[in-house]
Amino acid sequence: MPVTITAFADSPDEGQGMARDMRVRWALEEVGQPYEVELLSFSQMKKAPHLARQPFGQIPSYEEDGLVLFESAAIVLHIAQRHRGLLPDEQNARARAIAWMFAAVGTVEPPIVDLEVAELVERDESWSDARLPLVKDRIRGRLDQLVASLGDRDWLEHAFSAADLVMVHVLRRLEGSGILEEYSTLCRYIDRAKARPAHQRAFAAQLAVFNNRQQG
Amino acid sequence: MPVTITAFADSPDEGQGMARDMRVRWALEEVGQPYEVELLSFSQMKKAPHLARQPFGQIPSYEEDGLVLFESAAIVLHIAQRHRGLLPDEQNARARAIAWMFAAVGTVEPPIVDLEVAELVERDESWSDARLPLVKDRIRGRLDQLVASLGDRDWLEHAFSAADLVMVHVLRRLEGSGILEEYSTLCRYIDRAKARPAHQRAFAAQLAVFNNRQQG
Repeated sequence: MPVTITAFADSPDEGQGMARDMRVRWALEEVGQPYEVELLSFSQMKKAPHLARQPFGQIPSYEEDGLVLFESAAIVLHIAQRHRGLLPDEQNARARAIAWMFAAVGTVEPPIVDLEVAELVERDESWSDARLPLVKDRIRGRLDQLVASLGDRDWLEHAFSAADLVMVHVLRRLEGSGILEEYSTLCRYIDRAKARPAHQRAFAAQLAVFNNRQQG
Repeated sequence: MPVTITAFADSPDEGQGMARDMRVRWALEEVGQPYEVELLSFSQMKKAPHLARQPFGQIPSYEEDGLVLFESAAIVLHIAQRHRGLLPDEQNARARAIAWMFAAVGTVEPPIVDLEVAELVERDESWSDARLPLVKDRIRGRLDQLVASLGDRDWLEHAFSAADLVMVHVLRRLEGSGILEEYSTLCRYIDRAKARPAHQRAFAAQLAVFNNRQQG
């Protein structure tokens, strides 16, 4: 059953694994599912053929035998439901892992994306510098709560799961902001996840896209 | 099997159904599952007993026979998986409905919450008025895409599903902003959903909380 995902032809992060296709690559590597990648230019992302599979003109999308999916966390959940190893078998534990996936993209990620918008899109506005501390403090509020909830556990719910996969990738978007360094618990959490062989294979695959473009 | 959810004792919207417990009440009404409500003050939401069930100190949480859940969309998904009627039976259609649930809270809702923050938390900042048009245009960008994707269909994926339930509630948070009125397609979509008896029962239940506080 061939699987095809879409990714940036020219990722703004230059192969640092920040784009959301990384989540799907990582999940596919965790379960041992091979996949093809269709690279899209920014203009292709906003045109009808891609909008038909991704209503918001983003990457990644996912195609498999008649199924077309979008939203990285939904794709990761789909992969986790089709294969063993990314979600607990026990029903209550499984529901909680899924709750953490929603928390990652619905509660933790929005203030982080807000910071990216503030630092990129709104950078040249006269009020940009004045607003940045408010944005960063809203992120810290979420991270404080996440640290309290994680406690001294290695993963959000017992064993590594799709919840950690999505949450760690959300947190990685803060790399370079200076904020993560205030949270040694979260740095260790991210490092544990990045040490997984599946993460390393996924990271190498997306970095190869950037290196190939440089050589081309 | 008793179900208990949490909600605001004093909802900032004064019973207009904007708080996220409305999503869970609505889903429970759709499937005919009775529930109890524990009302929380703002100070109770930030204390240890509630943080143990809702890591980010928000409402709603959900408790049922040993399971404690958080994140409104995750709770709605859990309800939809336990009962028939809120998700398609066919596996691919089901995966797509779940993708729309993630899109609602991960892609459509964040700019709407950003507007709420801009109009409430940042209202008195010197730069607040200058930034508002940017925030509103980011919402319009998402709504344009949502309208294009909805087309002339009544619901996101064939029949009404948990995807529409969450998306409609996300969109309702724009009521009063003046933006929804620019999108007659979305106004009709919201009206169709609000006409459902389960929505009306859920709305009445949360309004009763406000009315009881007024009389108390």
